[in-house]
Amino acid sequence: MVTKNELKKAKSLHQKKYRIQENSFFVEGEKSIKEFLASPLELKVLYSEQLEVFGAIKKGVSITSNELKYISALTHPSGHFAIFSLPEPQNVSFNDFLVGLDSVRDPGNLGTIIRLCDWFGIRDLVCSKDTVDCFNPKVVQSSMGSLSRVGVHYVDFDNFLATCPVPVLGADMHGTSIYETSIPKQGIWVLGNEANGLSEATKKRLSQTLSIPRYGNTQQTESLNVATATAILLSETRRKAASEM
Amino acid sequence: MVTKNELKKAKSLHQKKYRIQENSFFVEGEKSIKEFLASPLELKVLYSEQLEVFGAIKKGVSITSNELKYISALTHPSGHFAIFSLPEPQNVSFNDFLVGLDSVRDPGNLGTIIRLCDWFGIRDLVCSKDTVDCFNPKVVQSSMGSLSRVGVHYVDFDNFLATCPVPVLGADMHGTSIYETSIPKQGIWVLGNEANGLSEATKKRLSQTLSIPRYGNTQQTESLNVATATAILLSETRRKAASEM
Repeated sequence: MVTKNELKKAKSLHQKKYRIQENSFFVEGEKSIKEFLASPLELKVLYSEQLEVFGAIKKGVSITSNELKYISALTHPSGHFAIFSLPEPQNVSFNDFLVGLDSVRDPGNLGTIIRLCDWFGIRDLVCSKDTVDCFNPKVVQSSMGSLSRVGVHYVDFDNFLATCPVPVLGADMHGTSIYETSIPKQGIWVLGNEANGLSEATKKRLSQTLSIPRYGNTQQTESLNVATATAILLSETRRKAASEM
Repeated sequence: MVTKNELKKAKSLHQKKYRIQENSFFVEGEKSIKEFLASPLELKVLYSEQLEVFGAIKKGVSITSNELKYISALTHPSGHFAIFSLPEPQNVSFNDFLVGLDSVRDPGNLGTIIRLCDWFGIRDLVCSKDTVDCFNPKVVQSSMGSLSRVGVHYVDFDNFLATCPVPVLGADMHGTSIYETSIPKQGIWVLGNEANGLSEATKKRLSQTLSIPRYGNTQQTESLNVATATAILLSETRRKAASEM
């Protein structure tokens, strides 16, 4: 049995201020929940219409489909809703490549970038404070469990870059082609806001500006979407590192 | 002055069946509209709150902000709404690389892929008939004008691949690394549905199966999103072609 108060509290986690107040966020979908269960994060409660799919689980609570509909962030709820504690802040490691996001606002883009970091073995994603919250339900949803394996850090971005011990790399239309330049073994790729790109302050912190070559025969092609640009930069970074070993 | 009937007709273009019936689709936003105006497509009518931003334009009609709100597909209408004729079907050219989509359903993914094709100079995008319609308002919106420069063809996909004169390339987890294999100069990259990947029928048509290497140290990472996978495949295809010239 779930009380009305519990349901209300679960639903409040749609909003960032209550996630912070309750030190909690939620995950929906069997597959994503299982990935978080396998992570070091602490499960607070798992509401489910079918608890048996999670095997012998403590803190499991049966819930009706109507109750789930009330607390879910999905148009078609998945049948499962798990609340976890927010992770403890961790240190950023500079031993490998990092990704930095300067004012990325779209939850789908952040989720996709978290998934890319996971795929390419990037452990730390550093975000400006005005980047969308990684525990926003749409980000959790689109990161598909990868959020359980990538550390996302919200920092004073300019200060972070100013004191960053590794090269700061940015991409724009006027840099040297990523295909024709060597990429350092350690560094941070910084990517900017969907509409405005990198801020002027961030541009001043770049040690190197590279570009993704454009092959269209017009000059009109819009810049690449921030998530597809991240995909290409990380792929080329890993390819180069492997070919130079 | 816009009549009620005209507004109703404009709004009906949100739906595919009326786009086909009226042989029309619409574009919103000053920048996108200007890109379509520079394309060979025929403008039928341009509704705008500020016609002057388009210079001396025939077929411009002033519209109020409330009327625009009624016909717009956007939560925050851009102030401009242009209706164009659907393009005439064109032939597919096999002289350069193509992209093929097998049942891609998400409008944002298709829009992003159209933008990528434009960036990488891919002129033809071939789609299975159950791929989302490229004149869907969300696709037009997320392709940001690139749709005016990329030919999108809806075909019997299996039949198309069966008779396709160039190599058919697919990516999955088990193929040879794209970084370590040569990629032909001509061919078609096929990408599959968001949830299920390539269909069994399409898999049988592949001449080569390649993979995007994964660097994460777990085996749990979800497959890449279809648009980010396209980004990496096209980038690597163009990089290899340039380095082998």
